[in-house]
Amino acid sequence: MPKTELEKKKKELEDQYRSFQAKKLKLNMARGKPGTNQLDLSNAMLDDFNSASDFNASTGDDCRNYGMPDGLPEMRGIFARMMGVDAGHVLIGGNSSLNMMFDTVACGMTRGFAGCKPWGGQEHLKFLCPSPGYDRHFAVTQYFGFELITVPMLATGPDMDAVEKYVLDPSVKGIWCVPKYENPMGITFSDETVRRFACLKPAAKDFRVFWDNAYCVHDLTDTPDRLLSLWDECEKAGSLENVFFYSSTSKITFPGSGIAAMAAADGNLKTIREFRSFQTIGPDKMNQLRHLVFLKNFDGLKNQMAKHRALIAPKFQAVLSKLDAELSGRNVAEWTKPNGGYFISVNVLPGCAKRVVSLCGEAGVKLTGAGATFPYGKDPNDSNIRVAPTYPPVGELKQAVELFCICVQLAAAEKLLKKF
Amino acid sequence: MPKTELEKKKKELEDQYRSFQAKKLKLNMARGKPGTNQLDLSNAMLDDFNSASDFNASTGDDCRNYGMPDGLPEMRGIFARMMGVDAGHVLIGGNSSLNMMFDTVACGMTRGFAGCKPWGGQEHLKFLCPSPGYDRHFAVTQYFGFELITVPMLATGPDMDAVEKYVLDPSVKGIWCVPKYENPMGITFSDETVRRFACLKPAAKDFRVFWDNAYCVHDLTDTPDRLLSLWDECEKAGSLENVFFYSSTSKITFPGSGIAAMAAADGNLKTIREFRSFQTIGPDKMNQLRHLVFLKNFDGLKNQMAKHRALIAPKFQAVLSKLDAELSGRNVAEWTKPNGGYFISVNVLPGCAKRVVSLCGEAGVKLTGAGATFPYGKDPNDSNIRVAPTYPPVGELKQAVELFCICVQLAAAEKLLKKF
Repeated sequence: MPKTELEKKKKELEDQYRSFQAKKLKLNMARGKPGTNQLDLSNAMLDDFNSASDFNASTGDDCRNYGMPDGLPEMRGIFARMMGVDAGHVLIGGNSSLNMMFDTVACGMTRGFAGCKPWGGQEHLKFLCPSPGYDRHFAVTQYFGFELITVPMLATGPDMDAVEKYVLDPSVKGIWCVPKYENPMGITFSDETVRRFACLKPAAKDFRVFWDNAYCVHDLTDTPDRLLSLWDECEKAGSLENVFFYSSTSKITFPGSGIAAMAAADGNLKTIREFRSFQTIGPDKMNQLRHLVFLKNFDGLKNQMAKHRALIAPKFQAVLSKLDAELSGRNVAEWTKPNGGYFISVNVLPGCAKRVVSLCGEAGVKLTGAGATFPYGKDPNDSNIRVAPTYPPVGELKQAVELFCICVQLAAAEKLLKKF
Repeated sequence: MPKTELEKKKKELEDQYRSFQAKKLKLNMARGKPGTNQLDLSNAMLDDFNSASDFNASTGDDCRNYGMPDGLPEMRGIFARMMGVDAGHVLIGGNSSLNMMFDTVACGMTRGFAGCKPWGGQEHLKFLCPSPGYDRHFAVTQYFGFELITVPMLATGPDMDAVEKYVLDPSVKGIWCVPKYENPMGITFSDETVRRFACLKPAAKDFRVFWDNAYCVHDLTDTPDRLLSLWDECEKAGSLENVFFYSSTSKITFPGSGIAAMAAADGNLKTIREFRSFQTIGPDKMNQLRHLVFLKNFDGLKNQMAKHRALIAPKFQAVLSKLDAELSGRNVAEWTKPNGGYFISVNVLPGCAKRVVSLCGEAGVKLTGAGATFPYGKDPNDSNIRVAPTYPPVGELKQAVELFCICVQLAAAEKLLKKF
């Protein structure tokens, strides 16, 4: 585009932008928060479980009292199906799988794994962070003083050539993974990637894969992704002790009032069970019962997920249609079309992500901070933006994306004009 | 008593013991567990909070979604009243105050307090353990590698002369306290003890008092104990940063499905808030709402406690009457008569506690392990036994205590006969 044409286009975009500012929007697309109508799907949980319910677990224990540190067998069973792991190796937690991951790292720091010296007593710890990835994962290891190492995310999952090389360094202690509908890329790790994780030969005996299957049942289309079970592959490869598995019902029932769980092989399980035996009186069994009465079983859970899909698939579609209509073929952005999860990942022109997020913010649409999807919050290309379409109602969402498309083009025009 | 008479008495006791064994009892007085009728007191909570309830916090936030990391203002307010602290400095946790204490120690280990090097990087850490005390407190600091130092419990609380001397050692990092109806002694710290805590001058800048007010509203008589507010005394003394405050509703509503809370001064609060911001998506707000709808306010909570008292005061009375009737004036045991809390503390003849617990166990009555109330589970006198009267129904409780009294006398007879 010649300079004068570009300047004209920029002026047009600025006019459009200003008219958006005049609307005084106040929309939040920053976090993967379920919408209010999604929350309504679980309200019946509060009625189904009541004073007439049976408070005894299948073990005979009264769920209103102390006890059952591993959680209810049926809840462990549902998570085993969700995560593709063995039910006998599942531990139920509180309301936050992030909390279980943080505590696992805290356990590594203060007690250590596999009989190794606690991480807290070792020098210069490193942790692998496939990026774009989940900011709160990276933040946990940053908080505990690990050096964060960026591993590129490919269409098949983390760049396994890089991972296999990095783990030869004994100071590399783990890797964060969201293997299905990755946050924010929405991709699912390929069978080959899962198998290479199972066959990983880390130099550190206390290296651990943190396999956060946060979106394991969060399909959005008729052609959902399939994730190979890392548990099964590790069993075959004899590498089960290399992995911690996590999931939760945060985006199935109520975020913050759901159930979290983890799974691990015998050695890790012994370490974590010991940690928990000192840490807590045990997880909230009444909330587990409440979930069991409401969801019933894994099929009931899948049924609940179909209802979520019916509410949020149109939101994803609205965003994708708008991006297609406004940005397709203009060489100013690329974006993902996920089969599930909570995010659409947009790459704008290098050097433009911060500007786009700032422009949107100044017009009343809050996006995830640019760079958040990379270690230390620094995107080396300043290009990736995470779009979270689930929270705003469709009408507001359409407005927000319209603004977003204007900002993407405006930032691109600003950048290109600097070249003249 | 001459030898022959003692032998005759021992034979009688053995006969009584054997007839108890024949009853094949199976009773548990090991832990401070509420009885089933106490749990029933909170069943209505499940009905009062239902799908028709208002899910918005007073702040306008939807409690079904993410957010509000400090907890609901009204819940913080109730805990402020319970703990005698400022509501703005209360943080709501999950279902376990033990978990909050463990996490505080973990925070000290990995991040440190008051800008000091994390405890994990310091040498030879020590922690003060007023004893007899709560085994799970001591266990937390043992787990993290602290040397546990026994401080005698007096009728006024921990021996403050000893405490004041110990804290001159900069490697002493804290002290465990249950200031009201102490577990297991049932005593409440005197005003002077509280004031001496407020005026403590620890050598270590990162020394912290862990003030676990677990039984703050758990009165059992018409003459309840009064605990001076350490918060207020510390404010006067300018020593508020020396203390972490804890409590929970575990023995108010449902153990394991209640609400825990802590309070701290600004500096500590900043450190703990930061820890929590990395650790978790926040506490379960729906369970907070459920509690607020049910308990309403601090008066509602006190009303609930009166109902608990009506159920368990007779159990304490049953134990105390039996102890009086069977053991009074025999010089084989001393015991506490608490105005609240969950325990009766019995001191049998030195060297007899293990034997009594073992005799009771072999006749089907499980007691807290002898020694559990001391650091490392080792009672130097092998004398203290913690009796937890709340869980068994009164009828069974009476049987259990009858057996207990036989075992106390039998163990004493065995011991005295060895002297001849």
